[in-house]
Amino acid sequence: MREVALIGSGVTEFGELWEKSLADLVAEAGITAIMDAGIDGTDIDALYIGGMSAGRFVGQEHLGSLAAEVAGLSDLHIPATRVEAACASGGLALHSGYLAVASGAYDVVVVGGAEKMTDVPGTEATNILASAANREWEAFFGATFPGLYALMARYHMHKHGTTSKQLAQVAVKNHHNGTLNPKAQYQRKISVEDVLNSTMVADPLHLLDCSPITDGAAAVVVASVETARQFTDQPVRIMASCHASDSISLSERSRFDALPAAVSAARCAYRQAGVEPTDIDFAEVHDCFTIAEIMAIEDLGFVDRGQGGPATEDGLTARDGDIPVNTSGGLKSKGHPVGATGIAQIHELMLQLRGQAGQRQVEKADIGLSHNVGGSGGTAVIHILEAI
Amino acid sequence: MREVALIGSGVTEFGELWEKSLADLVAEAGITAIMDAGIDGTDIDALYIGGMSAGRFVGQEHLGSLAAEVAGLSDLHIPATRVEAACASGGLALHSGYLAVASGAYDVVVVGGAEKMTDVPGTEATNILASAANREWEAFFGATFPGLYALMARYHMHKHGTTSKQLAQVAVKNHHNGTLNPKAQYQRKISVEDVLNSTMVADPLHLLDCSPITDGAAAVVVASVETARQFTDQPVRIMASCHASDSISLSERSRFDALPAAVSAARCAYRQAGVEPTDIDFAEVHDCFTIAEIMAIEDLGFVDRGQGGPATEDGLTARDGDIPVNTSGGLKSKGHPVGATGIAQIHELMLQLRGQAGQRQVEKADIGLSHNVGGSGGTAVIHILEAI
Repeated sequence: MREVALIGSGVTEFGELWEKSLADLVAEAGITAIMDAGIDGTDIDALYIGGMSAGRFVGQEHLGSLAAEVAGLSDLHIPATRVEAACASGGLALHSGYLAVASGAYDVVVVGGAEKMTDVPGTEATNILASAANREWEAFFGATFPGLYALMARYHMHKHGTTSKQLAQVAVKNHHNGTLNPKAQYQRKISVEDVLNSTMVADPLHLLDCSPITDGAAAVVVASVETARQFTDQPVRIMASCHASDSISLSERSRFDALPAAVSAARCAYRQAGVEPTDIDFAEVHDCFTIAEIMAIEDLGFVDRGQGGPATEDGLTARDGDIPVNTSGGLKSKGHPVGATGIAQIHELMLQLRGQAGQRQVEKADIGLSHNVGGSGGTAVIHILEAI
Repeated sequence: MREVALIGSGVTEFGELWEKSLADLVAEAGITAIMDAGIDGTDIDALYIGGMSAGRFVGQEHLGSLAAEVAGLSDLHIPATRVEAACASGGLALHSGYLAVASGAYDVVVVGGAEKMTDVPGTEATNILASAANREWEAFFGATFPGLYALMARYHMHKHGTTSKQLAQVAVKNHHNGTLNPKAQYQRKISVEDVLNSTMVADPLHLLDCSPITDGAAAVVVASVETARQFTDQPVRIMASCHASDSISLSERSRFDALPAAVSAARCAYRQAGVEPTDIDFAEVHDCFTIAEIMAIEDLGFVDRGQGGPATEDGLTARDGDIPVNTSGGLKSKGHPVGATGIAQIHELMLQLRGQAGQRQVEKADIGLSHNVGGSGGTAVIHILEAI
């Protein structure tokens, strides 16, 4: 397997983008990434695109072919593959593109992720998102994603003493970071009181413990390290790309205060990269709900099990803390266009690693990690990147 | 890249399977393939599953994680990836699994495809299938798949003199083959008159020119050739695995009497396998409509452009012809559970190559080809297999 690098990235604005279609978003993100990489359409050997449920959100499947068309690449007949793993579709698309380049099958691959979620009413969006759970054994009986994560939150509180205030601190931190991200859906600060006083969605999760419904797309350009040097003097090396699965049903898990798939993917990633959790300078993690970030920093070994809440309260994961987490604003504040999220995380890592993160630049950014989760933990994809 | 083989396969019955859920079908096909290969769950390094639109048909995305759960593999946390390219989802899943094994990333991979289509009414199924076309520029304006293929059929007739009777011959042949396939949805003969007298769906395509709405699943086990020998003395080698894209919109194509993506994928496959069209002993091609098989045998170089109709009339592609096509019954008679089709084609190839096709066994079956198409030709995936 060859060494693989990222040589360009781009994201659209995230938000309620009523004037942009799914195809518009795919085109905009793709072209931005291609221009950032300085490559030409004819340099591209293959496309990968992650999307969760465009079939239900906008009546569109066959996203690989759609991406080839809107990118103007149809006549080249290059392979164009859509992959899907619910909210980890973007991360999985990158993992697929990584494997294809590492294997030597392709030299330059564009990997995108996109979701257009705001064309359906909110309750329908919640129902569509429940397609990431087991429809027959969870969703049919009324379980929604706030409900499933609320069960994990309640268990984490019971077992480890995590508090609602600690959960709220995740949202406060990420909204604070989001004020420094001009692409973020929400660019306003919130307080712990705002979170605790917001509508209860699924006890103990308030409205402001939940990530929003978002339109957006993101793309990156992947190349072998050798090829990368032809296009950029700032390539970012993929030190590790790991993908793990678990049961789609929460009830079938081996434990409920962690995501075993994330623990497994993290173990794989640290081994592949040859680093320890303490070597990671900063991370983008999958904070679809505030409890998810608490579990993530535990699953990734940044803190001991049960210490995610207190560590967040103590500022460990703040932008000026020991290990900044979600400097982009995270899913909570930047927005969560489900298929795009995994690639948008990579975009933030690239900005930080290349010193292009502007006002939200962290001081030490040599090695960054992304943590992307599908469903209630049925899929986890972890990447570790370094500036070279 | 390593040499890759298939070591087992399985399909469910195809049809209106009201008593079986999507998860049931995935489990049944997967277990059948695993037993056929003689492997154990712990031998499996990764799962790939192709599905077009379970999100819309049964409200279920995240099929990788679902497959891991129903296969009882959740606790192993192996990578489980869903890929989608409309009706070529199955073929694309195999291509993805092939690349993963060829690269050395994995030794043993199970690849499945599934679709549960009959839980929605027929008109809704047609609308869901239209998600494989460009929703904004085709489906919103009323184009359906019978309509899009009718346009190609009309053009083929205009340009090459293809007749409705020749189209009907495709259906008659495939239904005849279907009578010999106990897994087929339709196991009854039809006549040219039956086809020509059946309801007109989209002129010139009659009801019996169209493949049906079907529930079903299929799975295969992929391994490196080296590993394959540990499990079976009848491995089937993947000589070529090629994937090509084109515009999702029919209107954007460079021509209308062929599928340029299929031509491109065929060129790639013949080069990769080191064979010519005349070396292919038999094929399973994507006859979603009768005109599609006519174009397929032209795109694959079995006959010259425009000769698909006359060649079919002359019996070239009959089971006892020079190059038997769709001995399984094809999509037309065997049924077309869209995500499963590409893998079901491979199952038929394996049966024939291993001499296990019973009453429909062809005499010379050393090299077989599968041709799987997504949408109106936005994706094409071609495999060439040989018994070793």
